[in-house]
Amino acid sequence: MLVNGQHYRTIWIKPDDPRVVQIINQQVLPHRFEIVDLTTVDEVAVAIRDMLVRGAGLIGATAGYGMYIAALNAPTGSREAFLAALEADGETLKATRPTAINLEWAVARQLDAIRAGDTIPEMIEIARRTAIAIADEDADFCRRIGEHGVALIEEISARKGGEPVNILTHCNAGWLAFVDYGTATAPIYAAHDRGIPVHVWVDETRPRNQGAQLTAWELGQHGVPHAVIADNVGGHLMQHGMVDLVITGTDRTTHTGDVANKIGTYLKALAARDNQVPFYVALPSSTFDWVTRDGVKEIPIEERNPDEVTHIQGLYQGEVVQVQLTPQDSPARNYAFDVTPARLVTGLITERGICEANEASILALYPEHRQGAGGRS
Amino acid sequence: MLVNGQHYRTIWIKPDDPRVVQIINQQVLPHRFEIVDLTTVDEVAVAIRDMLVRGAGLIGATAGYGMYIAALNAPTGSREAFLAALEADGETLKATRPTAINLEWAVARQLDAIRAGDTIPEMIEIARRTAIAIADEDADFCRRIGEHGVALIEEISARKGGEPVNILTHCNAGWLAFVDYGTATAPIYAAHDRGIPVHVWVDETRPRNQGAQLTAWELGQHGVPHAVIADNVGGHLMQHGMVDLVITGTDRTTHTGDVANKIGTYLKALAARDNQVPFYVALPSSTFDWVTRDGVKEIPIEERNPDEVTHIQGLYQGEVVQVQLTPQDSPARNYAFDVTPARLVTGLITERGICEANEASILALYPEHRQGAGGRS
Repeated sequence: MLVNGQHYRTIWIKPDDPRVVQIINQQVLPHRFEIVDLTTVDEVAVAIRDMLVRGAGLIGATAGYGMYIAALNAPTGSREAFLAALEADGETLKATRPTAINLEWAVARQLDAIRAGDTIPEMIEIARRTAIAIADEDADFCRRIGEHGVALIEEISARKGGEPVNILTHCNAGWLAFVDYGTATAPIYAAHDRGIPVHVWVDETRPRNQGAQLTAWELGQHGVPHAVIADNVGGHLMQHGMVDLVITGTDRTTHTGDVANKIGTYLKALAARDNQVPFYVALPSSTFDWVTRDGVKEIPIEERNPDEVTHIQGLYQGEVVQVQLTPQDSPARNYAFDVTPARLVTGLITERGICEANEASILALYPEHRQGAGGRS
Repeated sequence: MLVNGQHYRTIWIKPDDPRVVQIINQQVLPHRFEIVDLTTVDEVAVAIRDMLVRGAGLIGATAGYGMYIAALNAPTGSREAFLAALEADGETLKATRPTAINLEWAVARQLDAIRAGDTIPEMIEIARRTAIAIADEDADFCRRIGEHGVALIEEISARKGGEPVNILTHCNAGWLAFVDYGTATAPIYAAHDRGIPVHVWVDETRPRNQGAQLTAWELGQHGVPHAVIADNVGGHLMQHGMVDLVITGTDRTTHTGDVANKIGTYLKALAARDNQVPFYVALPSSTFDWVTRDGVKEIPIEERNPDEVTHIQGLYQGEVVQVQLTPQDSPARNYAFDVTPARLVTGLITERGICEANEASILALYPEHRQGAGGRS
């Protein structure tokens, strides 16, 4: 999407130097727009581990490009030594964020593809093409989510006679979390680009403030009208008819329709239900969990470092600093996700179309995952 | 309550100098414990306006002491000049936070009492005694709320066989908002002081973080086990049986049971209802609105400066500073309160006892406000 009027993805090969991969350093957004060069696997690993890049789609794409960098730097003495180095680098990349499933998937896909090459130059070229293919597919899935989801916004816009459609979102399921477009934001960008007036309520999303820092920045750069609100505000807005539609992303959605997403999503879903506001979740099919049946009971919720609650990052006298918010001796707890039960979810927006948040409707879109469809998933 | 092991109220006359009123500067809590001397009406006005003191009860008490300081400093040439100065000072105090009803009430009560005096020294003494009476009554109302509310905690404690009772609270309806005890916290302090094990989930309460800055500090100083959480977390905790009881304060509660309180309260009430967690609101009778019937539709919601959302205060290298959280060009909106409909409120804890959040039950406790009870309110 646009940054300073120019089109960017979140990761790309440097145009005039194909040995360099470039990313946007999301650690210093929104206060600085900084592009970082990656030329070694160690630099890629640090970028993932220290969250210069984050978000399921982008982590996968970064691992893909990381394996291309690994291929560029691997010893060329023998095929065996070359592949052994790549396998070791793959382990390094997978260890950066052990719970990110896309990481493991991208590394495995690269290794499978590379092994099919005959010569080392050919294997390097395969790694390059596979990295680009992983990124392109991610962008394409998000673009298709946008095309399906924009229909919801068009319909509301028509009903409101062209008045701006007010959409609330939580956390960052924007293009910064993927390669382009995002998931929750894809329908919004599609609507905006078609000239449908939209206005986005951006939950700041404590404790890490991905809404205030990332979603607000990307919407602003692309010219989408928006306002940042505290996470406490959504219920009040919905009570007063100031939200037409909620769209969030998800970290994992069961095939029964329960949605694990950033902590606080459940509270917004409750408010949406209490005020008859449609609540949609946007996701690529890779985010479905085809095994778990009861998301609330079964999905483990990560508890993160309490420092994310007791401290916050912001701009002070031109520097990005951390300040302490709480009393020195007060403990804090930091549950990172919650699960919104399917009964509160109006629908799911996927790259194949929109479905209801229940097993029958999800499996109608993804028949290859029906029990007995066997082995094709 | 206790600070560094010593008992404090939020406002008092300096023991060895009765011309000085002292307060705790809540602007720099929890990072510094700073007592401020007030000796002129201008200093009192600044303390209220700049929120060194805040909270309905404490604002009223500060206005009461402010009128005592006014009496100490008024010209003594004639009764008329003395009273004229006091009236002017009363206007100064009332203008500091125009919507705080306790301010107006305390100034009027002081002027009525003072006018009954015969001599100027007597009028000064009346002002002193009235200031203390206003503060004592506030503390006494809160203490009685604690005595009624502690029964709820005792009952849960007995049912849990003495396991800690987990109580969630939002914002600061603690002793720092009143003269002592607080409203939402009064039952908690009463339970703790009786040896009932409690643990408090403290919502940080963005955007002004009164939970993280004030409630956490006062609970910690008094030795009450607690943990600070992001405002997004309460729903997840309730889904997993980690909250036994919610108690909040309120800025205004209709006689039909609708509760206006800090933004985000409504979301917690929805989660409480969805998980069968009792949701109580603690208030002194002065907080009831005996006119408004539909709180959601009729109570105007203050929209405050967006700077409170885009910036936050914290400790950086030993200094209390403001940092910017959002992109330079992103607008923010700052709705300060929301209204929780009576249907979501399990009960109200008042100085007269506990009642249900509906007109019949409230009027049974406050029969003098029945229509036709006439003129006695």
